Amino acid sequence: MTELTRRTVLAGAGAAAAATAFTPFATSTARAAAPSAGAQAPGFYRYTVGSYECTSINDGARSFPLPDTFVTNVPKAEALAAAQAAYMPNGMVTVPFNPQLINTGSKLVLIDSGNGIATFGPSKGAVGRTLQNLAAAGVDAKSIDIVLISHLHPDHTNGIRAADRSMAFPNAEIMVPAKDWEFWMSEENAAKAQSNEMMKNYFANVKNIYTGIESNVTRYDWGKEVAPGITSVAAPGHTPGHTAFVIASGSSSILIQSDVTNIPEFFLRNPDWHVAYDLDPEQAQATRHKFYDMASAEKALVVGFHFTFPSMGHVEKDGTKYRLVPIAWNPVI
Amino acid sequence: MTELTRRTVLAGAGAAAAATAFTPFATSTARAAAPSAGAQAPGFYRYTVGSYECTSINDGARSFPLPDTFVTNVPKAEALAAAQAAYMPNGMVTVPFNPQLINTGSKLVLIDSGNGIATFGPSKGAVGRTLQNLAAAGVDAKSIDIVLISHLHPDHTNGIRAADRSMAFPNAEIMVPAKDWEFWMSEENAAKAQSNEMMKNYFANVKNIYTGIESNVTRYDWGKEVAPGITSVAAPGHTPGHTAFVIASGSSSILIQSDVTNIPEFFLRNPDWHVAYDLDPEQAQATRHKFYDMASAEKALVVGFHFTFPSMGHVEKDGTKYRLVPIAWNPVI
Repeated sequence: MTELTRRTVLAGAGAAAAATAFTPFATSTARAAAPSAGAQAPGFYRYTVGSYECTSINDGARSFPLPDTFVTNVPKAEALAAAQAAYMPNGMVTVPFNPQLINTGSKLVLIDSGNGIATFGPSKGAVGRTLQNLAAAGVDAKSIDIVLISHLHPDHTNGIRAADRSMAFPNAEIMVPAKDWEFWMSEENAAKAQSNEMMKNYFANVKNIYTGIESNVTRYDWGKEVAPGITSVAAPGHTPGHTAFVIASGSSSILIQSDVTNIPEFFLRNPDWHVAYDLDPEQAQATRHKFYDMASAEKALVVGFHFTFPSMGHVEKDGTKYRLVPIAWNPVI
Repeated sequence: MTELTRRTVLAGAGAAAAATAFTPFATSTARAAAPSAGAQAPGFYRYTVGSYECTSINDGARSFPLPDTFVTNVPKAEALAAAQAAYMPNGMVTVPFNPQLINTGSKLVLIDSGNGIATFGPSKGAVGRTLQNLAAAGVDAKSIDIVLISHLHPDHTNGIRAADRSMAFPNAEIMVPAKDWEFWMSEENAAKAQSNEMMKNYFANVKNIYTGIESNVTRYDWGKEVAPGITSVAAPGHTPGHTAFVIASGSSSILIQSDVTNIPEFFLRNPDWHVAYDLDPEQAQATRHKFYDMASAEKALVVGFHFTFPSMGHVEKDGTKYRLVPIAWNPVI
């Protein structure tokens, strides 16, 4: 009899192989098993906020070798330990991407647009899945009324263009934070950034994505109801105009944290760690504490662009750190 | 400017309502927004074990008022606190159900079958979703070769029958643990159980489901390769024949814990708590420690029938307790 021991599990594979010749399965004329599907389930998840029907849309996830400077203010070994504690692939960090679709009843609003198919090339497949997951959710890209961008980083904004550079959401108003627009469209700022490879690329990317459509872009300020029931909330640091959102309908509300933290396994658990992508890491850190002290006190439901799909949870204070409690999957809405 | 304060979030809904008259949205001739979908995404999730393609199939989840005796050996208030710590609906407990489909390349094996449509009536909708989620995953119920039952409780076994009582998987061999079959099919045991409402119902349910197909049911023992690469592992206590499984292919393996714990928020976090459904709670508790001491030492990937969908994670020792680290959603397989 198989006892529940370490040996059992370790021996599992070998035992299975050895046993094959002696089981009926090897000799029976089996019907052909169903072929492998080879594809993941569609990445969308529905939830409601009052009368609003919302959908978390997975743009994919990237796993890549942990860069030496992914976390700028702790030794790489510490970051690697955090990755391993989260069971990320060995030596790598995994960053997911999740735009949110808000159906207010009168407007269909997509908050952030994902990496776009063009960013890493269509063959990469692991990201740029927003259009296909919207389609899987039964949503026609032409029906989107507003694309509401939290900040002008490539993984949030590049999805506004399809692979052929046409507008992926042809009937949508594109709304961007005024402060980010001012910062990233400044030739003076771009010139100053030429010595920093990452910043140079960011400026070039904004130019690449927005050239030719400048006059069709709406700039929004903080503290405004930028779409029905959707209020822009100042969350600067990650970028100068980085914006979070409150979605409110009836007596219900949720917080869209955008990039207040990058991956929670690193930067929510360790809110004083600085991700390489923060333009003003000290300000981003202060914003992070302010946001999560509030969110945890309110027991607010928080959506994180870089939380693992379906990218929602409650956040609790844990001494000087925070802890994410992911939501339970709800099979009905 | 909206500051990031508790007032902001609390005022969100009111502010949104008040602001409506002053925003362009109220007066614009909006295109009709997309209608609400009203339905959740399909509940299936693919993963691989060596060359095997596996699919976690969500049968649904039930939320119900926490019974006084759901946890038999701690005060109800403690159980309620655990439910609230997991953000379950107020005063309620949520129990998810997740059969697993294993495609070995030669056999299509469904481990446990869910509640069945008939159990709570088709109108309930929240459970009995295995057939529809298999269909969503592109799997024809007729193509299932083996239904491998971990134990003879209704939520694991009733799905072998369709709503009209016909066999839901008409070409499948039904395999049940020999020790459970012996226990639940015994008229003597059934007679002794008549004074216990839960046990009486369990015995009646086994009779209801298996009458007429007795001769077609295969009884399996522990420590056997019951299907290619799938080994049955003794895990008694929850029921006399309750079985866990090791799935092994190549150098990879995972553990299917079945009901070694019911919901992890209660019984993995507190492995000495007894769920009302355990027939021999002391034995179940011992099995739980043995299983999870091993699984945590091995850093094994564990699938839990009652873990929230997609129902997989790593389990770590945390003093005398355990902690589940759910897997990150993988958008590709």
